Amino acid sequence: MLNELSFFEAAQSIKNGDITSQRLTRDCLDRIEAREKKVKAWSFIDPELALRQAQACDEADSIKGILHGVPFGVKDIIATFDMPTGMGSPIYEGKYFGYDAACVALLRASGAVILGKTVTVEFAGMAPPPTANPHNLECTPGGSSSGSGAAVADLMVPAAFGTQTAGSIHRPAAYCGVIGYKPTFDTFNLHGVWPAAQSLDTLGLIVRSIDDIELISAALLGRPVNLDRPQILKPRIAICKTPLWNIVKPETEEAIKIAQETLEDKGAEITELALPRKFEELVPARDIISSYERARATSYEWFNHRELLSPQLSKAIAKGFGWEYEEYSDALKVGEDCRKILSNLFEEFDAIITPCTAGEAPPDRNSTGDHSHIGMWNLLHVPSYALPTYRGPDNMPVSIQIIGRHGKDNKLFDVAKWVLEQLVSP
Amino acid sequence: MLNELSFFEAAQSIKNGDITSQRLTRDCLDRIEAREKKVKAWSFIDPELALRQAQACDEADSIKGILHGVPFGVKDIIATFDMPTGMGSPIYEGKYFGYDAACVALLRASGAVILGKTVTVEFAGMAPPPTANPHNLECTPGGSSSGSGAAVADLMVPAAFGTQTAGSIHRPAAYCGVIGYKPTFDTFNLHGVWPAAQSLDTLGLIVRSIDDIELISAALLGRPVNLDRPQILKPRIAICKTPLWNIVKPETEEAIKIAQETLEDKGAEITELALPRKFEELVPARDIISSYERARATSYEWFNHRELLSPQLSKAIAKGFGWEYEEYSDALKVGEDCRKILSNLFEEFDAIITPCTAGEAPPDRNSTGDHSHIGMWNLLHVPSYALPTYRGPDNMPVSIQIIGRHGKDNKLFDVAKWVLEQLVSP
Repeated sequence: MLNELSFFEAAQSIKNGDITSQRLTRDCLDRIEAREKKVKAWSFIDPELALRQAQACDEADSIKGILHGVPFGVKDIIATFDMPTGMGSPIYEGKYFGYDAACVALLRASGAVILGKTVTVEFAGMAPPPTANPHNLECTPGGSSSGSGAAVADLMVPAAFGTQTAGSIHRPAAYCGVIGYKPTFDTFNLHGVWPAAQSLDTLGLIVRSIDDIELISAALLGRPVNLDRPQILKPRIAICKTPLWNIVKPETEEAIKIAQETLEDKGAEITELALPRKFEELVPARDIISSYERARATSYEWFNHRELLSPQLSKAIAKGFGWEYEEYSDALKVGEDCRKILSNLFEEFDAIITPCTAGEAPPDRNSTGDHSHIGMWNLLHVPSYALPTYRGPDNMPVSIQIIGRHGKDNKLFDVAKWVLEQLVSP
Repeated sequence: MLNELSFFEAAQSIKNGDITSQRLTRDCLDRIEAREKKVKAWSFIDPELALRQAQACDEADSIKGILHGVPFGVKDIIATFDMPTGMGSPIYEGKYFGYDAACVALLRASGAVILGKTVTVEFAGMAPPPTANPHNLECTPGGSSSGSGAAVADLMVPAAFGTQTAGSIHRPAAYCGVIGYKPTFDTFNLHGVWPAAQSLDTLGLIVRSIDDIELISAALLGRPVNLDRPQILKPRIAICKTPLWNIVKPETEEAIKIAQETLEDKGAEITELALPRKFEELVPARDIISSYERARATSYEWFNHRELLSPQLSKAIAKGFGWEYEEYSDALKVGEDCRKILSNLFEEFDAIITPCTAGEAPPDRNSTGDHSHIGMWNLLHVPSYALPTYRGPDNMPVSIQIIGRHGKDNKLFDVAKWVLEQLVSP
């Protein structure tokens, strides 16, 4: 079925005239029809609206752009002019904002078909979503880009937007066994993306094939696709166990160990990186920044619709309004200081491999899991990937996280691609 | 009349029971009624809606917060749940977005009365607004926070929001002869503020008395008001003529010269700062960043409603889509590099005094004037004030710009207050 194609393969096949956008879109819709009752990855799907976009692509005189005719899922905190944007909250359920977020308008301008809106945790926070993990319906898919992770993993759509303030791209990507990409902070335009915490929020991608990242990034940034850079032969990779190594489960330990051994075998220069003590402050600092800023960003809802907020979110907002401003500024300073240190450390290697989640997706639909392994790096504004390279004791996906230097997303792409090829190729 | 009170004075008077919010709000509305036909500072005013808020303040059992009962103007790119937000564009004229921007919700929670929406240049850009300069109706009020500058200067409202991407707070503040405050980048929450260029946009304030800044900042940031810091006695001030000194008019030269001489007389340690050559790249770099990011942020309107965009904005967007991604990244790097250099230079002084606008407001309603003197500092993310200290040959206001160190907004407030007292006190 065409819904099994990666975004990149689908774009190539449509461009070459081998398949139509309508066939592809129909196969995605059929998959959704078959599975959605169980997975609950979508907050809005209108098959006719999706098929009309596909038809317009098929009937166009020439291709509109590099994403021509390929379906894409949009996390439901991102505005779409022709679909409601509900924020996973009863306050905005069914709400039409009347414009497209910049990222959506840019995808459409490059020819993508906006298939529908994927489930978000309430305001990209921490309340449990309706979505199930497609690998085991008893498990959480992670959050807050829960629908994007589940839909891409379950072959309902080849790619989708996620946003990350702590671990909201990489956690669902890892738990669902697909690729998550969080660019350098402030890379993709955020207009029309509902904010959680403005100094942390980053728009990114969830896909099944790493070349999709290059294609979609090129469309969003207005740059040429470049998959012909010289192959990396001996990447310098630092293995970093982080101050959180004591809460890592055996399957993640194992995933890191296998990566280390295999990559060294394949020619990588492997070193071990012990982070300076200062980095122990990252998790609490991120938590202060996130809740301080979230409280402000959600102040309209807090002061006017408090009864419609989940207990989890209410607690976070109350906490956020409780911080002294000095505590918040000090937390920002921790981020700044560690960014400078990390930038110097990066003289010694090309990428860092580190845990992504503690382990497999927890068999618990009332939580979205721990985000601390991802959140500490998110405060550093560096680009990163979640790469599904391993399976845990319950045969659920386990990922490693690979971190690049600030602003060097292309370099990280090359290293991540090489790493995936060594660890996952048949 | 009560509309002549500063925001701070009004807040004190209401708190002390000397005046009511309704009396104050009525005096503001009367002033608007008398002058609005000529000045055109407002895009939305509903007197009953404003008076209902004032009445609720007067009838409350206790004061709601430190801004209790004082009217405030909101630039019309900032969302208000009970008033339309038109962006200065026919695309959004009369549009209700259904929520308050974070900054508006926070002001309301501290008791402010949202008086109405002030005119913005189309999407905070460069097309001429309907607004006139209250000091001379033939002159531009500057932009893009045109209505906020004019309304505060014309005693219609004591304070208003502005936003700045190049010079959109300080230019209208300077041309209209009131105080502009642009905080360190990313200080006030931007949720609900329509973006122009996300790595430059900053929310700030336009007021008539500098203590207003402390009061309103405290409300927005959730920190205590502190006007009792020890008075600054011998601030170290650098006079910086910048690479743009050759396009400064005599009145601005004179304003800087008088500031230099008077402040030295009053005890300041004055030095002259010659910026490194690298800083000559700031104006073109800011221009690239601004148009690149604006094109993305306005992509929905560009691809769907191009016929409703002004020629000025269309040109800027087309330019923005024309940059190579490398040119944009290089421009970002210029900003980063100069921020580092400036941070080191700041070891030697407490603040920089530099031109704000080239000179008085141009007698031209088809332009909003030159923003380059302000824009180059805006790319540096540092806090700054426009301080009206002088009058030009046509008796129009002329300001100096005072720049502080990144994140040191409190320190800059103290220095700016001292400077104003030396230069403007009777």
